[in-house]
Amino acid sequence: MRTIAGISKIAFGVAVLALATVSAYAADPLPSWNDGAAKTSIVEFVGKVTDKSSPNFVPEPERIATFDNDGTLWSEQPAYFQLLFAIDRVRALAPQHPEWKTKQPFKAVLDGDMKSLAASGEKGILELVMATHAGMSTAEFEQVVKDWLATAKHPKTHRPYTEMVFQPMLELLDYLRANGFKTFIVSGGGIEFMRPWVEEVYGIPPEQVIGSTIKTKFETRDGKPVLTRLPEIDFIDDKAGKPVGINRNIGRRPIAAFGNSDGDLQMLQWTTAGEGARFALYVHHTDAKREWAYDRESHIGKFDKGLDEARAKGWTIVDMKTDWKLIYPEM
Amino acid sequence: MRTIAGISKIAFGVAVLALATVSAYAADPLPSWNDGAAKTSIVEFVGKVTDKSSPNFVPEPERIATFDNDGTLWSEQPAYFQLLFAIDRVRALAPQHPEWKTKQPFKAVLDGDMKSLAASGEKGILELVMATHAGMSTAEFEQVVKDWLATAKHPKTHRPYTEMVFQPMLELLDYLRANGFKTFIVSGGGIEFMRPWVEEVYGIPPEQVIGSTIKTKFETRDGKPVLTRLPEIDFIDDKAGKPVGINRNIGRRPIAAFGNSDGDLQMLQWTTAGEGARFALYVHHTDAKREWAYDRESHIGKFDKGLDEARAKGWTIVDMKTDWKLIYPEM
Repeated sequence: MRTIAGISKIAFGVAVLALATVSAYAADPLPSWNDGAAKTSIVEFVGKVTDKSSPNFVPEPERIATFDNDGTLWSEQPAYFQLLFAIDRVRALAPQHPEWKTKQPFKAVLDGDMKSLAASGEKGILELVMATHAGMSTAEFEQVVKDWLATAKHPKTHRPYTEMVFQPMLELLDYLRANGFKTFIVSGGGIEFMRPWVEEVYGIPPEQVIGSTIKTKFETRDGKPVLTRLPEIDFIDDKAGKPVGINRNIGRRPIAAFGNSDGDLQMLQWTTAGEGARFALYVHHTDAKREWAYDRESHIGKFDKGLDEARAKGWTIVDMKTDWKLIYPEM
Repeated sequence: MRTIAGISKIAFGVAVLALATVSAYAADPLPSWNDGAAKTSIVEFVGKVTDKSSPNFVPEPERIATFDNDGTLWSEQPAYFQLLFAIDRVRALAPQHPEWKTKQPFKAVLDGDMKSLAASGEKGILELVMATHAGMSTAEFEQVVKDWLATAKHPKTHRPYTEMVFQPMLELLDYLRANGFKTFIVSGGGIEFMRPWVEEVYGIPPEQVIGSTIKTKFETRDGKPVLTRLPEIDFIDDKAGKPVGINRNIGRRPIAAFGNSDGDLQMLQWTTAGEGARFALYVHHTDAKREWAYDRESHIGKFDKGLDEARAKGWTIVDMKTDWKLIYPEM
């Protein structure tokens, strides 16, 4: 607009002043966050890395923020939502697999024995997920996920799963992007379970999703090239796998990382070990009434070593009960 | 700027008209491309996918374009540049590895026996590269690559390697990005050999680079977390591996793909098998005088099946000799 200079400089100046005044009174970008240490730490960090006159200024391409998904962006109780999806798939496919009646962890699913299933751990769960998700093309799997999300409801809240995302975190994602951050998901969950819906729900495109993967094979079916999903784990994006996945898919160290469990600890360590301003935040599930309360003893989203390290290092810990005005979006 | 309305509407309108006039006569976005079928096919494709009134319109987030690197964005003769880097590394590290004197492919490198080396094929070359690049942290390796690029010169042209990129392709990358495309590299080369320089040279950030990888391990060294590069191949991003790598790192099928050899064929097949408007382009090395001329019989960048399929399917084939006014940037 500098080409207008001379002709409408004064009018332009007036307009800029008017806009500046409006923006000074602009709505709080994090309205679902109560004022407190957590919110302040976020706003201060974003302020200093985006302020060109600050010694902590970070150029836009380097403003990488990584988010865990389960328990950080949406709920994960009474079981990872991907596991609830897998359970529905096992039930739907059981007639074609009589051997599942006696084979774990399928038997546990068919018997409704959630305890045995939980005891199989994240690896067992991933195995179950992989086994029930393979043998089809990537396009077919995408459709299965979409179909499930369109109808499935959470057993306790009876909400669609995509409405069990955390409103304060949606605001945080928007706030970071408005400040030049590129937001990524770095989840232990399956990458192709997330990609069909995270763009619409979180505003994160598929190419900014990192997760656990099964192997795929390029082949020709009916004269058309397809990628077939093989029943073989390629990569588990959890714990020490998270920095590995970040390096492989991003190739740049994040300056901010967000998690909720010990599975995110290495990602937060890797992020904060870089030079310059760094930010690490843990969501602590403390709200048994509005969501769930769990940490050190939980089978899902165990938060023990991470809690100690966050306290020792002064990382931001969100107390869900007191820091968040709202848990889920109002529909 | 709509807030100025009323006060400076006329001045603003005049300015817009002036800008529009300038832009109608704006410089050709592909000045190093001679007018011809190749250039026309590019401009027509970009025109229709960006025209909202066209049945071929593609929303911006889906405008994914993938580029091979070696032979497509920069030269690859008399050997892949990463191999020339590896050769320099082998020579530098040889005193610490007496066993290399009798062990292939190291022996070939130390003897200057390029023929034996070439005969080991892309897999042998990758093995050599991986072996010479492992045992250090990702940060250390990045520095080694940067140091080499700062001083190394091509044996024939005596240019720095980063000045042996193709000027017409640099223009094409810019042109696509100006039209809302997200540009990715999908190369058989090592991902961490490319990332240190492709942002500056091609305008492609590290998170938009896909390539072959070795395994890395997250560990603590002197109290600091590091990613150590292991001498173990993780993934080879070539041939049928290219659609696999695209699916893993992008999760969305490209609408345009660019290559120069049979190693890119599956990427072009995968790209063009999608619905709606699709674009596939092969760079054919036909210019022995300004660059190199090779195709069906070449050990490097073999272009045989791809050439047949491109002709049969009517993909764009760039005849380097006649389609490009300039090969390398004028320095």
